[in-house]
Amino acid sequence: MRLLIIGGSDAGIMAGLRARQLDPHTDVTIIVADNYPNYSICGIPYHVAGEVPDWHDLAHRTSNDLEAAGLSLRLDTRATSIDATGHTVTVRTPAGTVETIGYDQLVVATGAGPTSTTISGLSGPKALGPDDGVHVLHTIDNMHAVQHDLKTRQPTTAVIIGAGYIGLEMAEALTRRGIAVTMIQRGPEILSTLDPDLARILHNELDRHGVTVITGTTVERIKRHTSHLIVTVTNSAGIQRIETEFVLTVVGVQPNTGLLTKAGAKTGPGNAIVVDDHMRTGLPDIYAAGDCVITKHRLLGNTWMPLGTTAHKQGRIAGENAAGGDATFKGVLGTQAVKVFDLVAASTGLRQTDAQSARLPARSVTATVDDHKAYYPGSHPITIRLTADPTTGQLLGGQLVGTYGSEVSKRADVIATAIFAGLTIQQLSDLDLSYTPPLAAPWDAIQTTAQHWQ
Amino acid sequence: MRLLIIGGSDAGIMAGLRARQLDPHTDVTIIVADNYPNYSICGIPYHVAGEVPDWHDLAHRTSNDLEAAGLSLRLDTRATSIDATGHTVTVRTPAGTVETIGYDQLVVATGAGPTSTTISGLSGPKALGPDDGVHVLHTIDNMHAVQHDLKTRQPTTAVIIGAGYIGLEMAEALTRRGIAVTMIQRGPEILSTLDPDLARILHNELDRHGVTVITGTTVERIKRHTSHLIVTVTNSAGIQRIETEFVLTVVGVQPNTGLLTKAGAKTGPGNAIVVDDHMRTGLPDIYAAGDCVITKHRLLGNTWMPLGTTAHKQGRIAGENAAGGDATFKGVLGTQAVKVFDLVAASTGLRQTDAQSARLPARSVTATVDDHKAYYPGSHPITIRLTADPTTGQLLGGQLVGTYGSEVSKRADVIATAIFAGLTIQQLSDLDLSYTPPLAAPWDAIQTTAQHWQ
Repeated sequence: MRLLIIGGSDAGIMAGLRARQLDPHTDVTIIVADNYPNYSICGIPYHVAGEVPDWHDLAHRTSNDLEAAGLSLRLDTRATSIDATGHTVTVRTPAGTVETIGYDQLVVATGAGPTSTTISGLSGPKALGPDDGVHVLHTIDNMHAVQHDLKTRQPTTAVIIGAGYIGLEMAEALTRRGIAVTMIQRGPEILSTLDPDLARILHNELDRHGVTVITGTTVERIKRHTSHLIVTVTNSAGIQRIETEFVLTVVGVQPNTGLLTKAGAKTGPGNAIVVDDHMRTGLPDIYAAGDCVITKHRLLGNTWMPLGTTAHKQGRIAGENAAGGDATFKGVLGTQAVKVFDLVAASTGLRQTDAQSARLPARSVTATVDDHKAYYPGSHPITIRLTADPTTGQLLGGQLVGTYGSEVSKRADVIATAIFAGLTIQQLSDLDLSYTPPLAAPWDAIQTTAQHWQ
Repeated sequence: MRLLIIGGSDAGIMAGLRARQLDPHTDVTIIVADNYPNYSICGIPYHVAGEVPDWHDLAHRTSNDLEAAGLSLRLDTRATSIDATGHTVTVRTPAGTVETIGYDQLVVATGAGPTSTTISGLSGPKALGPDDGVHVLHTIDNMHAVQHDLKTRQPTTAVIIGAGYIGLEMAEALTRRGIAVTMIQRGPEILSTLDPDLARILHNELDRHGVTVITGTTVERIKRHTSHLIVTVTNSAGIQRIETEFVLTVVGVQPNTGLLTKAGAKTGPGNAIVVDDHMRTGLPDIYAAGDCVITKHRLLGNTWMPLGTTAHKQGRIAGENAAGGDATFKGVLGTQAVKVFDLVAASTGLRQTDAQSARLPARSVTATVDDHKAYYPGSHPITIRLTADPTTGQLLGGQLVGTYGSEVSKRADVIATAIFAGLTIQQLSDLDLSYTPPLAAPWDAIQTTAQHWQ
């Protein structure tokens, strides 16, 4: 069986590995648009920060590992069209020639790319780019451009547009390199996936490390002025011009769907490709997975929520089914974690506002609880918010902010597991969670928070 | 309503607090055998180690906190008998007088004490004790005796008999004080609640810190010889005499049940008091909770498994029901964690051998997986073993050994939550767990281990 995969990141590689694991005779070819198959894109900020000195270490697996697992890689090769009826994919080879590759089963995992922007100066033929000190950060090539720019021009100031996960991690990375960072966020608070009062704790952490955070502010224009850039922003105070040497725009992504929509696939939430729970596109023998497809959320139904963890799950399922299996995607909860300097924020499921937007009744309780017995050295408070159905108590979500190293993220995972299993907020107190004074309390911080419910 | 509670540790205090929380008019009196209500007995090793300089900090709540919550404490008062028909308890007051206290509802939470020992020299009228440098460690008074002895006699060597949780923590504590520790364990490996090959990882950690560990060895006799002690042990190599200045015996506990059995209550597994899921003893208006009662294990049924977490849960339920509520104990999984120098071991549910002893079919998979992406600094391997039913995949247990600070214990809690909810080992890969490179991988270490199942 010839399994062809378009896309060499999380979902594509997982699909190939799973198919080979289930049937080592499967002929797996992966079309990779660049030279960096199976890289950990989430690791880019840590290379920029200098914490991962050798960027090659960011590979989840090396090309040799992948070839040894039986995956044939077509690097620097771009798929240009799919003939669903003829079961072929047309590609442009590194040499610039056009080639047609036949398949029995196809998995499309083309991921997501930067959203188009309304910021003046960033579109059109004269759009500013890496040579001007203006960057995006979605690929290893983008990372190399950033690193080259930082090294050659040695900027002392930077503006980061967007205060989501990558924006926050890059604010830390550039600060660690001694660069004075200004973050600009359109919304009223950073990290809009967290309740604003909890995100404020991270905001304070940025302040504490010298990052200038400007919220409620829209970037209108970026203009090059001799050796520097001028970023024009507007907010309730009026128009402001920020002079800087380096701009990073990390304002969001959109699914790369052109190949599949041209082949006849449908799109749904977030303009992502519609797939069923087997990751089937509806086109014959064509599966899709990862950031380019819709995501089943266990509490909200179909959404679009591009995350590496989800891409891994969906890719594995697409690969299993393409190899003749019968695996189903069970849906996710949007569980996420981010480290910002010395703090960690993690969340899973719905916030009260998310639930209310989806017309689900919801109430929340919040507590700030020590991660372990305060008498044992190194204890730190974790602020925990749990959201549940006020009538049934069904657990809907959890948000946590605490100190790195105090088991914040796996506490989010305890909550994620409880939500997955349909437990109530009351049942959290029935869970038999581990205790030793250096790591917890006899009632874990999650349970202490849950006990505020009544 | 007059609620009388015998016992001022975890279960007793929880019962009192819960009753007052539900009905602030409840008249709650707690009979406390010593002067240390609501102390964290689990914290004793950290005071001995010097990590908690002020022993008062070991109190979960101070006497003032407890009185402020409406609990009347009768300190240094020992209950001597229960008249279940007459609804009275006889006590010996600090002054030595006898007093009878009436109640409407009674909660007995008398805990557990050291098991009787067959070691020659430790029983009878001439039994060695703290004045000789021979100690047990179950109460704050025991801790004071240890501290006094360590301070006044300044021993340079110590023998710890028993390599369970407290033994291991005390080995670390005494090592931190510069004392050369020898641990003697009857079984073939330390920490018999963990599979021997995993416990071996902790054994190596003890070796690395200079603790001498002797397994497969029985202590026959302890004898005082002028200024030192001679511990006589036997094993396959024959008889050996170990000279030391300080001996700690931490070989196990037994439930304190005399008050209740004399009043007519029944005993079950571990000779602990039989209670139902409402923590009722069967005697009118008498509840019992904590280390003195049997424990419902969710996979094994009734057992005896004294743990602080369980005592908290059972005490809360006894207090709620004594106050007129209808709470049920949902059972535990024996989830435990221990820190040994730089490592942490945590376990939940059944090991393969536990399952097989209970005639439950079981198979295990083991993997050693980085706690987070290896490229990010500070990553450490965690060895994880998952046990499940080979036919249904129902998850039965998990054991983890890894480095302190790498979220080992809350990973055990994710597994505990999954077992509580009846998930299968295959479903672990469906869980939406958090990921950021400094804290996990896109498949968490638990999921990577679970994927070795097939």
